Order: sequence, then C-alpha cells, then structure tokens
Amino acid sequence: MKGQLKRIFQPFKNDLKEFDRHFKRLMSSNVRIVDAIAKYLVIHKGKQFRPALLLVSARASGEPQQATYVTAVVVELLHTATLIHDDVVDNAELRRGFPTIHKIWKSKVAILMGDYLLAKSLIAATETQNLEIMNIIATVAKRMSKGELLQFQKSRNLDITEREYFQLIADKTASLISACCELGAVTVDAPPDYRERLKDYGEYLGMAFQIKDDMLDYEGSIGVLGKPVGLDLKEKKITLPLLYAFRESPGKSRKRIIRTLKNGADKKDILEIVRFVNEYGGLEKAHLKAVEFKDRALETLEGLPRSPARDALATLAEFAITRNK
Amino acid sequence: MKGQLKRIFQPFKNDLKEFDRHFKRLMSSNVRIVDAIAKYLVIHKGKQFRPALLLVSARASGEPQQATYVTAVVVELLHTATLIHDDVVDNAELRRGFPTIHKIWKSKVAILMGDYLLAKSLIAATETQNLEIMNIIATVAKRMSKGELLQFQKSRNLDITEREYFQLIADKTASLISACCELGAVTVDAPPDYRERLKDYGEYLGMAFQIKDDMLDYEGSIGVLGKPVGLDLKEKKITLPLLYAFRESPGKSRKRIIRTLKNGADKKDILEIVRFVNEYGGLEKAHLKAVEFKDRALETLEGLPRSPARDALATLAEFAITRNK
Repeated sequence: MKGQLKRIFQPFKNDLKEFDRHFKRLMSSNVRIVDAIAKYLVIHKGKQFRPALLLVSARASGEPQQATYVTAVVVELLHTATLIHDDVVDNAELRRGFPTIHKIWKSKVAILMGDYLLAKSLIAATETQNLEIMNIIATVAKRMSKGELLQFQKSRNLDITEREYFQLIADKTASLISACCELGAVTVDAPPDYRERLKDYGEYLGMAFQIKDDMLDYEGSIGVLGKPVGLDLKEKKITLPLLYAFRESPGKSRKRIIRTLKNGADKKDILEIVRFVNEYGGLEKAHLKAVEFKDRALETLEGLPRSPARDALATLAEFAITRNK
Repeated sequence: MKGQLKRIFQPFKNDLKEFDRHFKRLMSSNVRIVDAIAKYLVIHKGKQFRPALLLVSARASGEPQQATYVTAVVVELLHTATLIHDDVVDNAELRRGFPTIHKIWKSKVAILMGDYLLAKSLIAATETQNLEIMNIIATVAKRMSKGELLQFQKSRNLDITEREYFQLIADKTASLISACCELGAVTVDAPPDYRERLKDYGEYLGMAFQIKDDMLDYEGSIGVLGKPVGLDLKEKKITLPLLYAFRESPGKSRKRIIRTLKNGADKKDILEIVRFVNEYGGLEKAHLKAVEFKDRALETLEGLPRSPARDALATLAEFAITRNK
C-alpha cells in the first residue's frame, strides 16, 4: 500500500501481516499455471483496501479473531476474482499499471482463474464455520454480478437514469465495501447496533468511493489511475458527472452525445465530452453528491466508541473523495 | 428428460417436480437481461441429471426434505454456471444442439451470467443453513475449476499421462457427481455409512460417465451428442482412448500425432487419428476401464438397503457406459 492510504492503515500493520500470512496459505495450489498466476497477482497486488477495511472495522467494534483474518482473505479473493473477470469483460489492457491476466495468459485462463479464486474464497469462508458470514458473502456475490450485468445492459442501451446509476454502483461497488465493514463486526461478535452502523457506514463509503472513481475517469490521465482518461466513455458507461451535465445542458446536446457514444467515440469525441461535462458543472455536482455520502458515513460512525480504528475509518471517508487516484 | 434416462427417473417424477418449483423460484431476478437468458436456459434445459441423481440418492438413504430440493437447485445452478463458462473457454458453438449463451449474447454476458448463477447457487446453499452442505459445495467448486485449469495446461503442452487424466476427470466431472450423491444423503441426515457409500458410488459413476463421454467423442457424429466427432482433439484434449492407443502403437506414431495436434489438426487429420485409435484398440481398452468403474459403483451400492431408488442408481451405472449419446 502506498501514500495516504498506507498512512491511514499504518497503526494496523500487524493485523495486515496476519492477514497476509493467511492469504498466502489460501492462495497456494498444486497446479503449475495457478501458481504462476497467483505469484503474478501477489507481486502486483493492489491496495488490499477491502481486507484492511474489514480488519479496521473489526478493531472498531471488538477484538480481531482468527475468523477475522480468514474472512479478510475471503473478501480479497472474491474481489480479485471479480477484477479478473471484469478485465476480460471490458477487455482492459492494464490493471494497476501492469498487463491484465487475460492479456498475458489469454481470456480462457482468466475466466477459469477467476472461477478458481471464487471457489477458493468460498473454501476460506467455510473455514470460519459461520453461517452468517456465508450468507453475507453469497448475497454480496449476487449483488456484484447483478450490478455488472445491469451495467452491461445499460451500456448497450445508453438509457441509464440517476436512480439506476445509484442502484448500479450500490450493487457493483458499495455492496462489497459494506460487507467488509459488516463482516469485521460479525467476526468479533460485535453488538447488533455496531454491526448495523458499520454496515451502513460501508454502504455510504462505497457510494462516495465509486462516485469519486467515476469522477477520476474525467479528471485522471494515464499513469495516475494506471488507465487513460475517458475509458468509461469508450466502454459506453454513462456515469454521474455526465448524467448531471446532461441535466444542465440543452436537450439536443444529450442526444448528440448519446449518438456519438453509440457509434463509438474516438479520442477527439472523448475530449469533447470531457469538456462538455466540465462546462455544465457535472464534476462539481457529482462532488457534492460524494460529499453527501461521505457526511452520512461520518455521522453513522459517531455511534461507535471512540478508538484509533474509528478515527481511521473517518479519515478513510475523507480520503475516498479527496484522493486524486 | 428423454429416452432411457427419463425411464430411469420416472418413479421420482414428483420429486423432480418439486425441484423444478424451487428452481424457477431461485432463477428469477429483476434484471431484464438475466431473465432473458434464464428463460433461454429453462427452454433448452439439459437432462437435469445432477439434481435427479441427488434426489434419488436422498430416496436411497432416507426421506427427502425441503433442504433436499433446494440443494438439488444448488447443484443444477452450479453445473449450469460452469457449462456457460466452459463454452466460452472452448468457444463452443452448440450446447444441447442449440447456440451457446456466448454465441447469442457475446462472451462478456456469458462470463457475467456464469458468475451470477454461481452466486445464485450460493444463495440457494445458504438457504439450507447447513454448514456441511456449504463445505461440500465449496470443495466441489474448487475441484471443478482446478480440473478445468489443469485441462487447459495439459492441452497446451499435450503431455498428459494416464494418471493425470484420471486426476483431471475426477476433479472436472466426478467431483460434482459424487457431491450430488453425498448431498442427497446429507440432506436426509442419512447414517454415515450410507453417506460414505453414496459419495463413493458417485465418484465411480462420475469416472465411468466421463470415460464414456470421452469415448463418444470418437464414436459420435453431429446430431447425436449435438457436437461433431473429434471435437476434443480439435481443442487439443488428449483423452483415454488415445492414451491407450499410444500405448499399443509404435513410439513414432505418438510423436507424429502430438505434432499434428500441436500444429492444429484439420478434418482429415482428425479422421486419421480416430482411425488410429480404433486400430490400436484404444476404445476397447477405455471401455474396459469404464466397466471397472461401473462395477465398483455397483459393489458400493450393495451396502445400501434395497429400494427402488437403489435399483435406479444401479441402472444408472449401467446406463453411464452403454449410452450412445
């Protein structure tokens, strides 16, 4: 982990080490190709944001147990599996600045490896022998794939509404982030009120996080997010900044842009749409919405006992919408 | 279900109806594209061999419960999910004689739909609130994807041994068939001895079933299995009939055939390899192996109490190796 995120999670580095030990144990296999990919994934590992969030949520509501670390592995494996499949679906070239699995090993292998990691995630979940954990994981797996399918459907028709956008990012992103926070609480047997609060905090954090992510697609440049600006547009994904710009612009602009996207936008088109979004205040309005979610996340935290973990979660909420990558 | 298989399962048609009721309930969603594919899958549904096997195993060792029917849905959803992904991986045109999901809706959708059905399968599994069931499902999901990955690795190097072949089909096919039989027993709370026997019976049945499947690839023609003869060879999958033919043939034939497969075999090459397998008795030897597994399956059944269900399982074992499609 790097930069600000690393600083936020610094006080919990022993928990992260314990997670890492279990992660390596559960990633091992006896199939050569699996081990080769697993090694690549470990070298180019991401921020491990989700397991860290689970660990800090556990600390904010109790004392981490063996099940806490194992469940942190469950969510990381689930997240990794979905990223690998998403990269195939989007035909993405890079992930974290490095070639994606399907670019190195072909799509076939990426599909199978995603399935394998998903199964491994389940194996890890059953290790906890806790039915509540299984229920949460099954539900989040369903919400995530439902979100992806809805996103595909919407990118084909380009007819997404603001309400559908929120539903989509809730399923696609916030569901897992919320599950991490709730699972942290479940694994330490936290009181129901703390558990509910952490679950809600996670849902708001996830919404703020994804809105910011969608904003960065208009703000970023290659090298920062590890992907070029306007990639969502290329994939015909209409996100909040564009939806808000549509609302402030003359009706015919919307039609024109939809037509451009349908026909496949080139580099020039993309830059024009980015300008359009800026011109009609789409980014500022999206930012206000992200702030709204962030504020709700912070409010929800206030019912938890004061602790370094609670403070870290509050800082995370601020970070989610101020980060520049 | 059609023909002989339908006759075997005929006495259990009420159980199958009850399964179907739960299947339809658990397949429903509120995403348009999901429902469209689900409808297509229901219309072109397969033999539903695995859920039927689970139901009959339950009858052979106790009295079916609500959990029995729900678990039958779990295995059918899991099986369907893996078929959809396998068809993308193999770029198969037809399944059950009809266009595959990825040919109609594109690979992206097929990947996401497979993930969705896998998640739905988990949701169904958690409905049973039974940790043992979850453990079995997680283990089988891992074995199946491990088997597929091993198969891919072997098809790239064309260096599979007889032992690896058995490991591969055990993971890829027998694991789920065995799990169906075991799960039937688990859901009726059968005595441990019955449960063990059904699990073993399923593993032997699965082995016999897959060996016959691999033989049919040399025997079948399009329209029978719904796929052309020699498809495995085109996908560089070396199966038991060829492995056994290699053993009886001069060393240089093996090298020549491996070279042909590596370079991509055309129609003429495939026919030549089919002739080679026949000439060196590969099919007869594979048949003897299938008979061996079938006999072990029958022996294992003998420790179960006599019942129409046990008789049906015995008939199934015979059917697994005598079927011509």
